Amino acid sequence: MNFASDNWAGATPEVMAALGRANDGFAPAYGNDALTQRVTARFAALFEREVEVWFTATGTASNSLGLAALSRPGGLVLCSSEAHITTDEWGATEFQSGGMKLIALPQVAGKLQPQDVVDALGRYPAAGRFGTPVALSLTNATELGTVYRPADIAALTAPARAAGLAVHLDGARFGNAVVATGASPADLTWRSGVDLMSFGGTKNGCWAAEAIVVFAPDRMRDLAARRQRAGQTFSKARFVAAQFEAYLDDGNWLRWARHANAMAERLRAGLRASNRARLGWESEANEVFAVLPGTSVAAIRAAGGSLHEWPADSLPVGQRPEAGETLVRLVTSWASSADEVGRLLSML
Amino acid sequence: MNFASDNWAGATPEVMAALGRANDGFAPAYGNDALTQRVTARFAALFEREVEVWFTATGTASNSLGLAALSRPGGLVLCSSEAHITTDEWGATEFQSGGMKLIALPQVAGKLQPQDVVDALGRYPAAGRFGTPVALSLTNATELGTVYRPADIAALTAPARAAGLAVHLDGARFGNAVVATGASPADLTWRSGVDLMSFGGTKNGCWAAEAIVVFAPDRMRDLAARRQRAGQTFSKARFVAAQFEAYLDDGNWLRWARHANAMAERLRAGLRASNRARLGWESEANEVFAVLPGTSVAAIRAAGGSLHEWPADSLPVGQRPEAGETLVRLVTSWASSADEVGRLLSML
Amino acid sequence: MNFASDNWAGATPEVMAALGRANDGFAPAYGNDALTQRVTARFAALFEREVEVWFTATGTASNSLGLAALSRPGGLVLCSSEAHITTDEWGATEFQSGGMKLIALPQVAGKLQPQDVVDALGRYPAAGRFGTPVALSLTNATELGTVYRPADIAALTAPARAAGLAVHLDGARFGNAVVATGASPADLTWRSGVDLMSFGGTKNGCWAAEAIVVFAPDRMRDLAARRQRAGQTFSKARFVAAQFEAYLDDGNWLRWARHANAMAERLRAGLRASNRARLGWESEANEVFAVLPGTSVAAIRAAGGSLHEWPADSLPVGQRPEAGETLVRLVTSWASSADEVGRLLSML
Amino acid sequence: MNFASDNWAGATPEVMAALGRANDGFAPAYGNDALTQRVTARFAALFEREVEVWFTATGTASNSLGLAALSRPGGLVLCSSEAHITTDEWGATEFQSGGMKLIALPQVAGKLQPQDVVDALGRYPAAGRFGTPVALSLTNATELGTVYRPADIAALTAPARAAGLAVHLDGARFGNAVVATGASPADLTWRSGVDLMSFGGTKNGCWAAEAIVVFAPDRMRDLAARRQRAGQTFSKARFVAAQFEAYLDDGNWLRWARHANAMAERLRAGLRASNRARLGWESEANEVFAVLPGTSVAAIRAAGGSLHEWPADSLPVGQRPEAGETLVRLVTSWASSADEVGRLLSML
Repeated sequence: MNFASDNWAGATPEVMAALGRANDGFAPAYGNDALTQRVTARFAALFEREVEVWFTATGTASNSLGLAALSRPGGLVLCSSEAHITTDEWGATEFQSGGMKLIALPQVAGKLQPQDVVDALGRYPAAGRFGTPVALSLTNATELGTVYRPADIAALTAPARAAGLAVHLDGARFGNAVVATGASPADLTWRSGVDLMSFGGTKNGCWAAEAIVVFAPDRMRDLAARRQRAGQTFSKARFVAAQFEAYLDDGNWLRWARHANAMAERLRAGLRASNRARLGWESEANEVFAVLPGTSVAAIRAAGGSLHEWPADSLPVGQRPEAGETLVRLVTSWASSADEVGRLLSML
Repeated sequence: MNFASDNWAGATPEVMAALGRANDGFAPAYGNDALTQRVTARFAALFEREVEVWFTATGTASNSLGLAALSRPGGLVLCSSEAHITTDEWGATEFQSGGMKLIALPQVAGKLQPQDVVDALGRYPAAGRFGTPVALSLTNATELGTVYRPADIAALTAPARAAGLAVHLDGARFGNAVVATGASPADLTWRSGVDLMSFGGTKNGCWAAEAIVVFAPDRMRDLAARRQRAGQTFSKARFVAAQFEAYLDDGNWLRWARHANAMAERLRAGLRASNRARLGWESEANEVFAVLPGTSVAAIRAAGGSLHEWPADSLPVGQRPEAGETLVRLVTSWASSADEVGRLLSML
Repeated sequence: MNFASDNWAGATPEVMAALGRANDGFAPAYGNDALTQRVTARFAALFEREVEVWFTATGTASNSLGLAALSRPGGLVLCSSEAHITTDEWGATEFQSGGMKLIALPQVAGKLQPQDVVDALGRYPAAGRFGTPVALSLTNATELGTVYRPADIAALTAPARAAGLAVHLDGARFGNAVVATGASPADLTWRSGVDLMSFGGTKNGCWAAEAIVVFAPDRMRDLAARRQRAGQTFSKARFVAAQFEAYLDDGNWLRWARHANAMAERLRAGLRASNRARLGWESEANEVFAVLPGTSVAAIRAAGGSLHEWPADSLPVGQRPEAGETLVRLVTSWASSADEVGRLLSML
Repeated sequence: MNFASDNWAGATPEVMAALGRANDGFAPAYGNDALTQRVTARFAALFEREVEVWFTATGTASNSLGLAALSRPGGLVLCSSEAHITTDEWGATEFQSGGMKLIALPQVAGKLQPQDVVDALGRYPAAGRFGTPVALSLTNATELGTVYRPADIAALTAPARAAGLAVHLDGARFGNAVVATGASPADLTWRSGVDLMSFGGTKNGCWAAEAIVVFAPDRMRDLAARRQRAGQTFSKARFVAAQFEAYLDDGNWLRWARHANAMAERLRAGLRASNRARLGWESEANEVFAVLPGTSVAAIRAAGGSLHEWPADSLPVGQRPEAGETLVRLVTSWASSADEVGRLLSML
């Protein structure tokens, strides 16, 4: 009953096999190898256009370096109040960018609302007393398990782009968003106004496969140099490339994400039907938020299950846990089993 | 004939096997897993004392974060003029430390000399006009293929420690130094005055296995937080731990390093005997520096061989390449074969 | 009718005279002169205890360097949503501190409320996912013209200190707070739990006289070195010392602040009595916030008057300007005259 | 007998008078006042072209912010080994630029040699292993009292510009260089290839009057925002403007610099004639370097004189002080008197 995080799973057999295949002979270091070049071409095919692909070690690295490449002194980044970049990265973007400020906007179940972006652009004009907004950052799937569809994204990016901002996407769970929306990677990104993204493979079946994918290289400043200076340029880059090759082969990544999402939906269905627990809010990707009796949380843990408690203020006032209740996050992955889900639900 | 760098090789079969073994079931993220804990204990046994072990993605990350954890505003780091931290890391230490300055001291075949350290401590007093020296950084094996023995290290660290400096060791090729000197890891580090080191496994048979090993945790400031902020905290940390487990098992790392050093010695022997080429200087680890006829360099490359040209000013005036000659670096690894070495020598 | 800001006034005659007196002969640079030493002793007398005094060029410099000296990677600073450090300093604190994050808490007319500080300490535990709170920053007089009394400050600092945070005070208008509260400088600072402050003289009659006054030097890290590195160490420091000497002589600073506050009170009284304009909220120091008819704003400007419009969202929903109205800020200074105030009020 | 530094003098009567004149009434803050605008026009006239003028608090601020506005990750700044930016500013440029590295080149009596610049450009190619050179920084008058003439500057900047570098000038003692060379400000700067400079008034008769003067604004990135973020934007900017107005009026600055240079020449003449002391090297501006008997140094100090000892390694091997001798720096200013000079010389 492992529902703590999708990063508690290991790598898929396909990823392991690809690593084995890549481990043959010598190859130039720092991404100058044939496999890395081949994988870059795969990304281009996936996104139906030329892209730049820069491997990094972690999603935090991708987010902070990508945003730093957009940074200016006095720069502001608009994001949701639940955005991982502002809640979990210990000031990584602030640090890499030399002090940009993240402006946390309201969200509904993790999703930014167009009017709030418009209002923020009014409140934070370019070169105003607060500084200058330089980027809007979205996350898809969001940190709260919900997803943006292409039209949602376009509605958010249009006013931002009109005001001169670049658009960044945190895609730590991008595969889950693609599956949940049924939209193409292109429609979920550059065709809807996204300039660069953090493309995450780690949570969805790899060991450590993260990349910054750039759609608008002329908006970036010194991204390669920033990555080098940050100690994020793997010498044996083919070990990342191999993971991504297996990831993108045969639609593997979507198959894995589809499984994770399906397990999450099974959780949601069980919770909707429960009379002891309830969904915190509806989600569509592989994260489920539920209000459970504290006794159930204790019982799950006693049975060896893992899950994370979640701050109650992610729920609107009025829907927050009552005494004896706890808001929890349940995350499924490529490795979650229907059995595990069943066991958990049987305890509710 | 791959002699460009030890990071052109892949991972050893033992490392691949360990990755496979580690890929079983779920494990807590961010280093809270049992394997990471076990590997930390292995490091303690290796160094014959308690240590802190912090995985990172690259040697540049280890060096810059380790030194940043020692940093102060106006801080100075004394290092050799050939130190990787000052020649190849694009200002990583300057950046992570908020602007420390690296003071490049003279070296002889890559090795710092005690008198130069003493002189530098005189020239750069604490809180003087230049700032305050906070660390001495050594590299072993050095960037020029030479090695420090424990007494060499102690002679360098003693005056630095007396002046209040901490001592950092760049151990990107530490295994090669251990083998070349026959000294124990403990004697080459904390028993000779080293406070923390970058312990590299990548060049010697791993995919991406780097760690900051800390002997003096009370000298460090916020190392864990700095690593997190730098996007250097792998979520699936066991993939690094597994590599290090295979690395340290059965003395594998020393066996691999011994092979690399032996191949380098075979190269050196051939070069000493050559009447068309000559050694730039004697070395002991897995890097060989040689002055070759330009025609030989071209021929090697035409035959598919790889090597790097090296700045002539690493040689003393008077010994530098003459017209038609080139200084080159030849690096061997666990994957180098005697055949390859023989083929190269046959072209000289 | 200059009500744009207290930094539109020049220096007082006393300050000019002191500059003239200090301009005699040679004196050691960088604060090693007798006058600077004497002024430091004056600060100690003022605060009834030993203090460290570090001159800087601006309030932004004082705030950002003072907070940086408390910084840790992943550090958080709790402040009000109207705090100058988060609204007007273009990421100065984020930059100087290497990426600390400012957490903007709710406020009432610019004043933090104890329960909000307590709640924030619960939401942001040390070394939690958000990072580690390291400081609480207050402003007195606040950016909205209100003031904290010693008991107010103690109620805010007690929970913060209990949680290990240091307490910073932005005293850009500290003189106005001293006068408005009638409390002693000591009671408004260290006796109520403040560890360091930005002590501003510029807005209250000097040219450029700002200092970081430190009550808890053992909590600071490398403040002097940070100031040096930031280019904030004046060589001819006596020109700042001279201003502060005049400032503190004969209670001059309180006399000037008292005048400014009195002019503001006259404005407030007039606005309370007006039937065309109204106070946005009650204040006590030298800043007055008023909702004026847009036509009056235009008329004042046409008559050569200066004032700043202020974001309507500083007012609670329901009290915000209606169509045709504007929220404005009116600031008085040592140089404001009753005539000017009268002229302004006559236009309302 | 004050020869410690030109920053031990106060401000000239003309500067004090101008401050008094500027202290009349209200003026917009942050440089939006008429006087600042007028002074900017004066700078344009002085340099015979349009310029941007940004006031700062100190020379360190000007240097580090100006260079930061040219910075790139992995950037390198070529400068002399005696450059103030690398010897005395505690990593200010490294900090403000996010980690640029200063490359200290050889110099002869403080002056860079064209061949050394050419060699460095060869050793540090763009995007090479060391990073990317982005700027050449010169100082005029140099830190060792010597001066560059326009042809000297052009010979240094030509290869740097050809390689794409920008050229920065540290003009902390620019007035002394103008007087010593007899060249125009334009010929000593942009007409010889300089893109931006630190224009210092403090050492030559002001209290705190420093500015970044930009000739090539399109090479700068976000200089205004960087200055704001660094807390270097004075609110009552007219107090700097007033100093500069007096400075540039009637050629005052050149008159003051001419006096300082003349006093230095008198020192040099006396030292050339002495048989107990000798010049370290010939200089032309207001800094004189001399090798004195240690007994004379002690006697001067006993008589209340001030001077600084200087590192012996600024002299070539062979010319360094012998036992019982000390290399000292003697600095004259607008306030130095012939009497003082005579007294000092009489002690040698």
